[in-house]
Amino acid sequence: MKDHYQYKSPVTGEIYDPKTSVRYSEIPTFMRAPLVSDLSEIDIALVGVPFDIGVTNRSGARHGPREIRNMSSLIRLFHPVTRVNPFDLCRVADVGDVRVDNAFHIEAAIESIKSFFWKLHNAGVVPLTAGGDHSITYPILEAIATDKPIGLIHIDAHTDTSDTFLGSNVHHGAPFRRAVESGFIDPMRTIQIGIRGAQNTTEGWEYSLDKGMRVIFMDEVDQLGIDGVIEEARRVVGDASAYLTFDVDGIDPAYTPGTGTPEIGGLTTREALALLRGLRGLNFVGADVVEVSPPFDNSGNTALVGATLMYEILCLLVETAQK
Amino acid sequence: MKDHYQYKSPVTGEIYDPKTSVRYSEIPTFMRAPLVSDLSEIDIALVGVPFDIGVTNRSGARHGPREIRNMSSLIRLFHPVTRVNPFDLCRVADVGDVRVDNAFHIEAAIESIKSFFWKLHNAGVVPLTAGGDHSITYPILEAIATDKPIGLIHIDAHTDTSDTFLGSNVHHGAPFRRAVESGFIDPMRTIQIGIRGAQNTTEGWEYSLDKGMRVIFMDEVDQLGIDGVIEEARRVVGDASAYLTFDVDGIDPAYTPGTGTPEIGGLTTREALALLRGLRGLNFVGADVVEVSPPFDNSGNTALVGATLMYEILCLLVETAQK
Amino acid sequence: MKDHYQYKSPVTGEIYDPKTSVRYSEIPTFMRAPLVSDLSEIDIALVGVPFDIGVTNRSGARHGPREIRNMSSLIRLFHPVTRVNPFDLCRVADVGDVRVDNAFHIEAAIESIKSFFWKLHNAGVVPLTAGGDHSITYPILEAIATDKPIGLIHIDAHTDTSDTFLGSNVHHGAPFRRAVESGFIDPMRTIQIGIRGAQNTTEGWEYSLDKGMRVIFMDEVDQLGIDGVIEEARRVVGDASAYLTFDVDGIDPAYTPGTGTPEIGGLTTREALALLRGLRGLNFVGADVVEVSPPFDNSGNTALVGATLMYEILCLLVETAQK
Amino acid sequence: MKDHYQYKSPVTGEIYDPKTSVRYSEIPTFMRAPLVSDLSEIDIALVGVPFDIGVTNRSGARHGPREIRNMSSLIRLFHPVTRVNPFDLCRVADVGDVRVDNAFHIEAAIESIKSFFWKLHNAGVVPLTAGGDHSITYPILEAIATDKPIGLIHIDAHTDTSDTFLGSNVHHGAPFRRAVESGFIDPMRTIQIGIRGAQNTTEGWEYSLDKGMRVIFMDEVDQLGIDGVIEEARRVVGDASAYLTFDVDGIDPAYTPGTGTPEIGGLTTREALALLRGLRGLNFVGADVVEVSPPFDNSGNTALVGATLMYEILCLLVETAQK
Amino acid sequence: MKDHYQYKSPVTGEIYDPKTSVRYSEIPTFMRAPLVSDLSEIDIALVGVPFDIGVTNRSGARHGPREIRNMSSLIRLFHPVTRVNPFDLCRVADVGDVRVDNAFHIEAAIESIKSFFWKLHNAGVVPLTAGGDHSITYPILEAIATDKPIGLIHIDAHTDTSDTFLGSNVHHGAPFRRAVESGFIDPMRTIQIGIRGAQNTTEGWEYSLDKGMRVIFMDEVDQLGIDGVIEEARRVVGDASAYLTFDVDGIDPAYTPGTGTPEIGGLTTREALALLRGLRGLNFVGADVVEVSPPFDNSGNTALVGATLMYEILCLLVETAQK
Amino acid sequence: MKDHYQYKSPVTGEIYDPKTSVRYSEIPTFMRAPLVSDLSEIDIALVGVPFDIGVTNRSGARHGPREIRNMSSLIRLFHPVTRVNPFDLCRVADVGDVRVDNAFHIEAAIESIKSFFWKLHNAGVVPLTAGGDHSITYPILEAIATDKPIGLIHIDAHTDTSDTFLGSNVHHGAPFRRAVESGFIDPMRTIQIGIRGAQNTTEGWEYSLDKGMRVIFMDEVDQLGIDGVIEEARRVVGDASAYLTFDVDGIDPAYTPGTGTPEIGGLTTREALALLRGLRGLNFVGADVVEVSPPFDNSGNTALVGATLMYEILCLLVETAQK
Repeated sequence: MKDHYQYKSPVTGEIYDPKTSVRYSEIPTFMRAPLVSDLSEIDIALVGVPFDIGVTNRSGARHGPREIRNMSSLIRLFHPVTRVNPFDLCRVADVGDVRVDNAFHIEAAIESIKSFFWKLHNAGVVPLTAGGDHSITYPILEAIATDKPIGLIHIDAHTDTSDTFLGSNVHHGAPFRRAVESGFIDPMRTIQIGIRGAQNTTEGWEYSLDKGMRVIFMDEVDQLGIDGVIEEARRVVGDASAYLTFDVDGIDPAYTPGTGTPEIGGLTTREALALLRGLRGLNFVGADVVEVSPPFDNSGNTALVGATLMYEILCLLVETAQK
Repeated sequence: MKDHYQYKSPVTGEIYDPKTSVRYSEIPTFMRAPLVSDLSEIDIALVGVPFDIGVTNRSGARHGPREIRNMSSLIRLFHPVTRVNPFDLCRVADVGDVRVDNAFHIEAAIESIKSFFWKLHNAGVVPLTAGGDHSITYPILEAIATDKPIGLIHIDAHTDTSDTFLGSNVHHGAPFRRAVESGFIDPMRTIQIGIRGAQNTTEGWEYSLDKGMRVIFMDEVDQLGIDGVIEEARRVVGDASAYLTFDVDGIDPAYTPGTGTPEIGGLTTREALALLRGLRGLNFVGADVVEVSPPFDNSGNTALVGATLMYEILCLLVETAQK
Repeated sequence: MKDHYQYKSPVTGEIYDPKTSVRYSEIPTFMRAPLVSDLSEIDIALVGVPFDIGVTNRSGARHGPREIRNMSSLIRLFHPVTRVNPFDLCRVADVGDVRVDNAFHIEAAIESIKSFFWKLHNAGVVPLTAGGDHSITYPILEAIATDKPIGLIHIDAHTDTSDTFLGSNVHHGAPFRRAVESGFIDPMRTIQIGIRGAQNTTEGWEYSLDKGMRVIFMDEVDQLGIDGVIEEARRVVGDASAYLTFDVDGIDPAYTPGTGTPEIGGLTTREALALLRGLRGLNFVGADVVEVSPPFDNSGNTALVGATLMYEILCLLVETAQK
Repeated sequence: MKDHYQYKSPVTGEIYDPKTSVRYSEIPTFMRAPLVSDLSEIDIALVGVPFDIGVTNRSGARHGPREIRNMSSLIRLFHPVTRVNPFDLCRVADVGDVRVDNAFHIEAAIESIKSFFWKLHNAGVVPLTAGGDHSITYPILEAIATDKPIGLIHIDAHTDTSDTFLGSNVHHGAPFRRAVESGFIDPMRTIQIGIRGAQNTTEGWEYSLDKGMRVIFMDEVDQLGIDGVIEEARRVVGDASAYLTFDVDGIDPAYTPGTGTPEIGGLTTREALALLRGLRGLNFVGADVVEVSPPFDNSGNTALVGATLMYEILCLLVETAQK
Repeated sequence: MKDHYQYKSPVTGEIYDPKTSVRYSEIPTFMRAPLVSDLSEIDIALVGVPFDIGVTNRSGARHGPREIRNMSSLIRLFHPVTRVNPFDLCRVADVGDVRVDNAFHIEAAIESIKSFFWKLHNAGVVPLTAGGDHSITYPILEAIATDKPIGLIHIDAHTDTSDTFLGSNVHHGAPFRRAVESGFIDPMRTIQIGIRGAQNTTEGWEYSLDKGMRVIFMDEVDQLGIDGVIEEARRVVGDASAYLTFDVDGIDPAYTPGTGTPEIGGLTTREALALLRGLRGLNFVGADVVEVSPPFDNSGNTALVGATLMYEILCLLVETAQK
Repeated sequence: MKDHYQYKSPVTGEIYDPKTSVRYSEIPTFMRAPLVSDLSEIDIALVGVPFDIGVTNRSGARHGPREIRNMSSLIRLFHPVTRVNPFDLCRVADVGDVRVDNAFHIEAAIESIKSFFWKLHNAGVVPLTAGGDHSITYPILEAIATDKPIGLIHIDAHTDTSDTFLGSNVHHGAPFRRAVESGFIDPMRTIQIGIRGAQNTTEGWEYSLDKGMRVIFMDEVDQLGIDGVIEEARRVVGDASAYLTFDVDGIDPAYTPGTGTPEIGGLTTREALALLRGLRGLNFVGADVVEVSPPFDNSGNTALVGATLMYEILCLLVETAQK
């Protein structure tokens, strides 16, 4: 396992793990994990999807993978609660960015994304993805949920179950409506956490509730507490395969200003970390962190949150992936 | 009601509601509500008061109405808790900015503001105002409280009941002392929430307490919880007419950095939203959100908080205004 | 003419010209010109096209019209060189933003833009447009050049005569190749000024030169001086109808950092102003300023440059429009 | 005492206390306290240590004293909870910055710092210091703990008890390991609060625990609540001499983005203020606030937090110092 | 002379010149010059006037003295062209900020400023001032031009010879009209350089020209070149007493974004430095740098320009002051 | 040659050149050139030296390589003047960052840097380096100038020929004094361009002149024009081996604000590009771009300038390297 992470300098011949170099050094792959040439060498792939044509408001999430990679140099190895080093348990690598063949037509782009993740999935590699806007989760689910609908833990300010917008039924406000319709996710095994903010129509809220999704609005988060939310999430999703999708606007914009459709009154990062840690042992087959939009992230804090969430989720994924 | 919100493009002839256009489009009136030419067409007026000569520290709140209007394009219609669309209940419009005749002498400026709100009040229109610094609330109260002193819910880091400063007894640290002296507000029906931070004299704190205002310092907020604060606010203000004034520095500067006299250790936006929602049914005759100072608001988050607070307060006002 | 610019406050009844209010006040239409309900009332339309799906790199120009409107409150009336007030010569108005029916497919969006400008053109109104990315100029030219190819003065770092990119031949690097192919512009009456920066292929440069466009690269600007550039521009374009398109990346990013594909080594704003002033008397039938991308414009200077360029171009257009 | 704070203008002859001038005025000493020429005139010294060669990641804390001084003009006199004015109880002064003789070799620099604080301590003056990075606390402890090991309350995201890094055993991740080894602090009377974030080795956590320090990780903070943390801190430290060191990265980066090694999921400022206020009456012989890094602090909020923490700590120190 | 600049540390007893400490260290007086208690000890006073109530647009210049002081730590001693150290020729000191008795009424504030400078002038000290907005130059001229009108070199985008605005004839657009009317400056010995940008009325331009001021608009700067401008300035002002006032908006906002009324197309800093160096030997009795507005100066570059201009002007003033 | 630049996706198997992907995509190596494992595969190495312990003022250049790499994704292939694609002429690769063994003692760090470049040089690879502060050029010269002193073209605001500072004779103000003393550069074949700004001692200027370096201060740049400067540079350096070092503070801080010791009044980027292009055909054996400090570079423009300068210099180096 250790060899997997070693890098040899072409100049000095020195062999070392870039993850432990000083933070501002080395090529910024995700968490300074290795770039690999063969999928058989890895268990978990860190993927970037620099795509934001699906947004309905402020764009910029196309730059998300770049800046999350950049900030992820601050990520370190041993988890402060479990004391586990996830890189000891699985072979983790950065497999680069999805290349979108046609960036000017959303359906063609979505197809490129699906194709990429289908190849990863077929190779038995678990994907942990940095978006991009939330429209990318639909093709990821399409690539992964090949057998039957899977469960979903969805942290977000919005249900993303709206219908057609400006002439397209594929956009970042609709992936989970489409995913239910296509049978990629099971709405009865879906929980949406952190929902808040006004809407121009109530169609998204209603769709989620009508289909049987468990929707925890922020005022219910206040009532349940994070422990209660965790309990609900575990109950709803159960033991079968599930996907975890984290839109950083689920967190309050004081913590994550760099996003496209900020809504005040969200989760704190402390709650987000506690929530993720409470999901340990669930059967995750993939995950993503989306909607980090660097042009609106002056302090870099949103990218840092994104990178740290990826690390925490990695700690969840290694438990499944190493089985 | 629907017609009230329709706009007809002079170019294409298309008729539509600008509030539902894409967020980055349309002329940025408050919440993209219509501009009107006749006060008889409206129930609630959204007003800007671009004035900050009253500050004692950092200025910039003169740019508040502009940026709150800008960010308010992110505001949408249906409330996430009540599922009510306030625009369905009342005719809401943007009536533009107060024009200050003399910007270099605070008393003359204050007189201009009073005159504007007196005309609105006389036309039976309820004002929801974006400041500007807190000195603007005094002339608004003067225009509204024409019969007898009204109640006040005041959220702020400071009591704003200081006396003369640098030769003037009209400034943003004094409006509520002046309003008590002038009989515009009833101190026994006044509650001040979120007070904190050191002061150069204790005169403000003492004035508030001596006059019988209910002052909830931040450490008491911690003890009571927001539900307890709501209970106190409802008890103090009662059923009679009341005004709601929200200084964004009542909220912690992590959420609202763009303000003139930030004090750390304030309310979260979640608490602020819960607090406002707890005031439903009170008899509000007007309200304002003040001290958004865009030059200190790099991320735009303060203006977004300001715009969202205005939406939440609008949801309170429509209940009174439609009676 | 004076009446055209008067606004009556619905509250105070005061009648005044918003263009002369304090800079931080009033609803931010372009230059605080009136919103009108009838195209017959106006000679020149200020238009926003909040569209940036055509970019190949950083997006954000969708927010351009909003921020140019905002900064344009700093614009004033009498020109410092000519002492002429353009608003005295023509009826100028803000006609709002083009609404894009389908924001997720570039061809459909381009069609919406064309339709809007065709209606303006048919009403005899001269358009002065704020983009948006440069892909919007193609449908504007399509709407205007209805008889025969028109001349073009094009200030930019890039020739924007590339071919298909990522599966689409409509994007912000291609409008003038498409416009030549469609017969909207006459390449022999086209001049491109400020071209610089490396390219991944030489196809754009070659297309422009092959078709007979006069291409002035930055090193030739240094040799000719601005007076020489003006002379060339006037010679190439001549007396017949012409369109003026100004991509703010023609200017150096020290002046206009807020743009999608910045190239160092560009024009100064002083050169840009001198260049525009040297074009007086040409027969312009429309113009635009594009590629202002506010998310990359921390200081607001790019939007200020955009607004000032629009004012200078307005001073050119009034000479044609009043004929 | 009042005379101590008076300043006489060399121009107008006016005598006044600069602390009460308008916030944006006067030379920015810490809290606009006087500069003095004789240590016998003062009880508590406000000191700057503009030094950050000890960091392992992002530097910039060298600018901390400057910006904390700048923001500390917002600090005022009477405490909102105790209503005490600390400046009435002790003579407080700004004694300037430590001058580092050799800025390019950390050991030599550390020696300069020790020498400065040794002189202060010998003069019977209690130091309240603004860093600089955390490596400065080691020489301060060396200067103060001349008799026997003292107690330590340490608020931070990191234990700072690591060992050699990049060839040096003196750096900002190691001061408290060194201080235990040198006998400057008593690990059994040391408490570390707010610890979180992954680490590349577990050596720091283990060292702290092995030596008997009380380490409260953030998840335990959630369990205990701030009242519980206070109780633990008072129990561990007891009545004997103690030092208080506050690394601003103990607070969440939403509040304090301007720091070198941000970790999400930290304390809120409200918790930090409550925690400090709960330490009243302990026997503090000095304190510091470190790791404010202005180049990463766009909003200035981190420096404001730093300045406010210094005020709160000053209120603690005056109780000891006036004895 | 050397003693004048020495500082003795109250802690270490070390005696040194703070101007030569590391840039990020020491209390930020202007250029880290000494604070003095007696005007008889000095020849040239560096003064701050933190006042911006006179602005007609964006405020913030009240923070100018603070940030210019801050950035002036980057200033060093020996001039790169003359190789002269101005601090060797005169005793220079920071005398602090003007205190404004009444900050809410511009005439009262202006009176405070005049009184301060009158005392300085009476003590035979030459003032070099950092504003504040341009309204402060009027009371400075009133204090200095006690015998007869003096000459004026005025670098600015605007003539600042407008009349009454919003009810006041004292504001930052009017000081030189007032100064002519009051006989403080001789319009025939006044030159205004860098004028540009549209105006809402032509009254300012006309007033300047009617009174015989030499007005060099930016297009004439282009024609004359800086050498020609210098020649004109020397010819107009001649040998008698003169004052130098530099509004940083005379420089292009790419260099000085942090100002209240930016106009594109201004001087470069290279031109500004050359211009100032060309004024050597003129008989200056005072000078100021105004309109640095830190809230709009993200990069700090405007304050750096302001500080460097003050250094260059100091090099001019020492030649007169040492006579 | 083409194969050298091809990358094969481990997921899709697609083979392509990352340099031509969309700008916001792919791992950000310098100019998205390949990472290699063997020096024999390359002619020119792009190197990062993330080191800034040598600064005397603001640090942050340690983050320079990271952000220059990031911005260099905007760089493209064919040069706008020569139409040459430098990547066609030589095999260019990113060889990663120099690892500094001891980051807390400048001499040890300098030794690490020398060792790295000595290995590169020995392998016959020409280095093009991104700093880091200017102290890194000394060990690079030591590694390269193994036979006899080489020539130097040095663009900078400062001569960097000062002596000991704060106890060290190795720092970013001294490399060229040390390099002359050590016989690495020939002062008679050295030219320093763009020098300006005051200094605390004249020792640096005098050293350069005394040793026979050709020093072109900014006022002489104005006199000679860039063509004259180029002529001087070519005359001084002649045909023998030379090194090119470009400190971005040689350019005006309006263009390059993100640097440690900004001096106003510098070169424009247009002049810088013209200057570099004028050096074609000289015998360069290496080059660097230093002092890009991202924490002070809000707009990213400084990193973009740095990346573009590297591209222009690469176009110079390929001519020598391919011989």
